[in-house]
Order: sequence, then structure tokens, then C-alpha cells
Amino acid sequence: MTPFQFALLNTDPQSAARRGRIRTSRGDIETPIFMPVGTQATVKGMLPEGLKDIGAQIILANTYHLFLRPGHERVRRFGGLHRFMNWDRPILTDSGGFQVFSLGELRRITEEGVVFQSHLDGSRHLLSPELSVAVQQALGADIIMAFDECIPYPATREYVLHSTERSTRWALRCKQALGEEAQQALFGIVQGGMHADLRRLSSDQLQEIGFDGYAVGGLSVGEEAEVMYEAMDFTLPLLPQDRPRYVMGVGTPENLIEGIYRGVDMFDCVMPTRNARNGVLFTSFGKISIKQARYQDDDQPIDPACGCYVCRNYSRGYLRHLYQSGEILASVLNTHHNLHYYLDLMAQVRQAIEEGSFSQFRRQFHRQRQAQTKSTEE
Amino acid sequence: MTPFQFALLNTDPQSAARRGRIRTSRGDIETPIFMPVGTQATVKGMLPEGLKDIGAQIILANTYHLFLRPGHERVRRFGGLHRFMNWDRPILTDSGGFQVFSLGELRRITEEGVVFQSHLDGSRHLLSPELSVAVQQALGADIIMAFDECIPYPATREYVLHSTERSTRWALRCKQALGEEAQQALFGIVQGGMHADLRRLSSDQLQEIGFDGYAVGGLSVGEEAEVMYEAMDFTLPLLPQDRPRYVMGVGTPENLIEGIYRGVDMFDCVMPTRNARNGVLFTSFGKISIKQARYQDDDQPIDPACGCYVCRNYSRGYLRHLYQSGEILASVLNTHHNLHYYLDLMAQVRQAIEEGSFSQFRRQFHRQRQAQTKSTEE
Ligand SMILES: [Zn+2]
Ligand SMILES: [Zn+2]
Repeated sequence: MTPFQFALLNTDPQSAARRGRIRTSRGDIETPIFMPVGTQATVKGMLPEGLKDIGAQIILANTYHLFLRPGHERVRRFGGLHRFMNWDRPILTDSGGFQVFSLGELRRITEEGVVFQSHLDGSRHLLSPELSVAVQQALGADIIMAFDECIPYPATREYVLHSTERSTRWALRCKQALGEEAQQALFGIVQGGMHADLRRLSSDQLQEIGFDGYAVGGLSVGEEAEVMYEAMDFTLPLLPQDRPRYVMGVGTPENLIEGIYRGVDMFDCVMPTRNARNGVLFTSFGKISIKQARYQDDDQPIDPACGCYVCRNYSRGYLRHLYQSGEILASVLNTHHNLHYYLDLMAQVRQAIEEGSFSQFRRQFHRQRQAQTKSTEE
Repeated sequence: MTPFQFALLNTDPQSAARRGRIRTSRGDIETPIFMPVGTQATVKGMLPEGLKDIGAQIILANTYHLFLRPGHERVRRFGGLHRFMNWDRPILTDSGGFQVFSLGELRRITEEGVVFQSHLDGSRHLLSPELSVAVQQALGADIIMAFDECIPYPATREYVLHSTERSTRWALRCKQALGEEAQQALFGIVQGGMHADLRRLSSDQLQEIGFDGYAVGGLSVGEEAEVMYEAMDFTLPLLPQDRPRYVMGVGTPENLIEGIYRGVDMFDCVMPTRNARNGVLFTSFGKISIKQARYQDDDQPIDPACGCYVCRNYSRGYLRHLYQSGEILASVLNTHHNLHYYLDLMAQVRQAIEEGSFSQFRRQFHRQRQAQTKSTEE
């Protein structure tokens, strides 16, 4: 089994953008990368072959959902998540922390963990750092996340400090639970809210414990984009150069470019998949809503600049018809295009960093998305 | 453009089963064949590539639905149905008659045609033989159907006679509307209900007009299987040997085998696709309902005897999880397997007829489906 490794291949001369490679026993991950979200052991509407076709290198699955259904022990009996869902490339599982807070009901946080009620059937559970690791071990992901509290925004400084220090203690318990013979890489999650000094505190404490990678948690929780970028500005430089850096739950294409500019290597977000199912499509010139009547006679592909399977074979008019008709293929084709957009954007970014032209790429990206979005909205 | 041709390749020595080939400008169709139903310009949950992967040679689309949404003139502007939905193999469109009666509201039948209200928005329309042909020409299917009334069951003999003769007059108007320079093959539809003499009357009148193929309509409308087989028994021998024969809207795997035994070449039915979306899967040993808890820990494929993509890569337990979770992939994978089952059954039948062993095949098919269905239901 190849141990988990991260190699920094290129750094952008004019920004903190980095080009890297994560080595895992299930293949390499070229960074910066976006990870499609496969909440319930499936990326909604995508066959594994379709994911490979658009260049997905790693997907994310949700511990909270799989713990509740079908149950992690069941997945283990099926040979783990990879075999269960027919995906042989790397998988990252989150810790369940975020969903316990956003989906679970009647939750109560103690030092031990979080007591919550299932959103499915109201059953009571205690999710602790040890159980989170046990679940993620049963699922068998290649990269697993430390159990933490995703601090709401806004929050008092006092609460942020208290929660951040508890998350550090939980992260230590996760590392101890995983043990020395770990087959899985474990990432710590830097908290500290929008406070630079608490982010430093969190980062220092986590690095003292030592993790295979570092995530920045508690972003994209309702704050303005500028607040998020500011938090990235003071958090990313705190993280070690020789470990991958992952910003969780982010975000728009603009957010990704800005994150990469600040030194982020990995992203995940439901935005491309969820938007697709609602008929909202990402293009090089901004978002379009395929349900609009203006597209009913439109013979163009979603994005004439896109080379994906959908844009090569289907018109906006057909996709609008599928959406209006409530057809399964609407979700399937829209998801394919949107994920391709995100993954292709990452491929372009990687190339730009390699060529030392990321800053120009970033400027042009923003210019094109803004200019043409405006003209589309006329 | 290759003209529409039908060649009879083999006939079974012990039954009326036939092995044939329909030649169209978009490729050959080996018969007997089952046509997946793509009501709204998409076979629900299937990409065109997936359809080809399971050997679909021709699909069916519904004139009624496409007339109402997105509109046949719109489809024509997109270059026809093939281009609109990215399917380059043959397509058959029905006449809209069946749906006008089963879905339209407040319908009124006159000699001119049928006035009905759209099930989508209540708008009023008159569908006539001439309009049905015009719509089917705009859609551009390779095989189009004459406009007829699908007679309800039961019905008085008087009504059946009256309706059948009107359908003949409508069929003649369809042929005249299509004209001499027709690019599309036109099939007549034999009506006559469950009355042998009226089926003969209908068949004789239609053959006098002359069509490229003959369908048997008004079956699978609520009658017992034995009544349907009896109607096939006295109707199929009335049809010319040198034209393809199509039984519309039929049916179960058993119905297909019994239809082929009686000389049918073509079938269509929503059964495999609709059942798939409800978690009901066809296997060599009968139907299974994947939603049942008994499958939650089952690591076997749907049908160990099936070689389809789904059975090669996914367990019953995973498919049960997808279904329980309301995932899109549940419909996608279940549909793929069910259609593969139907198409593979047809491929086996074709081979059996070629080898002169269809009668044995039929006996063994019934034995296996019945025996193992029983043991599955224990
Ligand atoms: Zn595209
Ligand atoms: Zn199968």
C-alpha cells in the first residue's frame, strides 16, 4: 500500500497558488482539485464512468448520512464504500460534524461529543470523535477528517474560542483513535471563526498534534465573500507548505479561484450538483437558468466553449424540454455539464500554475464571467 | 435513402415464430424486437449510449406528448427527433390515438377526428388522421403509425364494428396524407376487439389500402392474458407474411414469448422502464422488488445469470440503498437492467428461432420463470 504523500510541484510567482500531487494507494490526485460530493454513496445522477469521463480524481462522501443509512457496518460488510458504490479512485469522507449541526435535530454538545436525533427517523445517537473515526474506518475512505464543530456565523469570540479548543481536543482523540497503523490519511480542521488570532491558535495546536493535511473549516457558513477571503488571507499562511490544504464546503467558481490564489489545494461543494438539478448551469460567461422560455428554441450547447459530452451532443432547447418535462435525464445531463465545468476549471488552473500564468488566468476569468454574465442578464 | 424493407429470414418449424430483418435508412432492426419507450423524447433514465450498450435497435416516442410539449414544429426546427434527442438509430412514433383516449380529457370523437383537452394545461385540440401524420412527419420517425381509436374493453360488438370501420377510414386518410413520396414507413393498425370476424374485416380492409407493416391494436387494455392470446391466435394469421407485425403496448416477458410464438415481430411497453423506477426488477427467475429489507445485506447482483453493466458492478444491497435513499441512480441502474433483460430476451429468442429450437426455448423459459418465482416468493 502506497503511503499518503503530498508533493508540491509548482508555486505561482505572483500569488500563493500551488500545483501539487497527492499520492494515495488508489491513485494520484493532481491539485488544485474540486471533489464532487457523493453524499449517500452516489454523486447524484452520475455513473462512476461518467465521473471518470469528466476527470474526477477523488469524490467526497458524507459520514453522517452513511452512518444513518445504510449504516457503516453494513458498508464494511460490502467491502467498504469503494466496492459498495463501484468507485475505485480515492474517496474522502467528512467527519459527520457539519451535518450533525446542519441536519440533526435536538443536538446537545458535550466534551464527549454531540447527541443528536436523526433527520430520517428521529432516532437518538451520540457522535463522538472516536465513533466518527470508527465510522470512517468502516467506510474505508482514503482521506478521513477529524471530528469538529463547524462554528456558526456570527458567533461571540468567547464561543469561538471555547469551541475551537474543544475541536482541538477532539482532533487529538481522532488521531489517537485512528492509531499508529492507520491505513487512512487524517486531516485536521482549523477553526477559529473570523478571528485571526484564534485561527493561529487552532492551527498551532493542530500542527503540534500533526496531521496528513489541514482543512479550513467554518467558512461558507453565511458570511460575505469578502469576509471569507479575509479569513483565508490570514489562515492559509499559518498552514505548513508540505501538506495539502482543503477548504471545506466552498464554493462558487469565483470562490475556488480566490481560494487557489490564497494557497488552497482542495475544495468540495454541493453547488454544481444541486444547481444542476434545479436547472442552473455554470458557463464560462456566468450562470444560466435552463428553465427559462428564452432557451426553448435555442439550438446552441449550454456553453459553446465547453467540450463536455453534454455540450457536444445536446442543445439548450432539448435540455430545457427535459427540465420542463421533469425528466431524469435533465438532472443527469445538467449534473454532467456542471461537474465538468468545475473539474475543467481546475484543470485549466493547474496548467496556468505550471506555466506561471495563474495571475493572468485569474484576471481573465473574473473579467469574462462578469462581462458576459451582465450581457446574459439583459 | 434506403427504402423500408422487411425480410423474413427464418420461420420456426413448430410454431408461427419468425426471425426477420427490417431495413431502414438508419440501420437494420433484427426481429423479434422489443422497443424501449421514450415518451417525451427520452427513454427515462437512459443515455443514448446506454441504450446502444444494451443493444436497443429502435425506440418508440409518443406523438401525443411531443405534440403538446415541446411541440412538433419546434422539434422539426431542431432537425427532427433524432437530432433533438441525440439518437441516430430508428425511431417509431405512435399516432397519438392511444394517449388521446387514455390521457386527454373531455374527448369527443367525430368522423373528422378527436377533440380533447391537454392533460398538461387543459388547452383544446383536434387530433385528426391528417394532423397525426403531419406531427409524425415533423418529428421525423422512421416508422409512423396510422391514427386509430384504441377500443376499450369490454365494448359492445356494435361499438367495435362502428369504431373499427372508422379506424379503417382514418387509416386511408393517413396514407393519403403521407403521400406517394413518403420518406417514412406507415403501419396500419388492425382493430376489431375480441371478435375474430371483425379482426378479419379490419385486416382485409387495411391490406386493401396497403401498408408497410401491420400492428395489432386494442390488446393489453385490461383483458385477461388468455383473452389476449386468443385474439392473437385469430388475428396474426390474417396478416401478410411479408410485412412486419407489431403488437402495441405489450407486455410482460411471458406476453412477449407468447406473442412471438404466434408470429409477432415487434413489441413496445412501458413495463420494464416504469417498473424499474418503482424498484421492480425482471430476472430469469421472476420479478423481485428491490425495496424489500431482505436485500439490504445481499451482495449478489440483481440476477446472477445477467451479464448487464448493472449486474456486473452493483449488488442488490447497494441498489436497495439507492432506492431507499430516493437517489437518481436507483432509476438509472434499475432501468438499465430491466431494459437489458427485455432486449437480451429478444436476442435469445432470435437465436433460438435461427437454430430451430424456439419451442424448447419457450417451454424452458416458462418453467424457469414459474419455478423460481415460486421459490423467491416463499
Ligand atoms: Zn458542457
Ligand atoms: Zn442485469
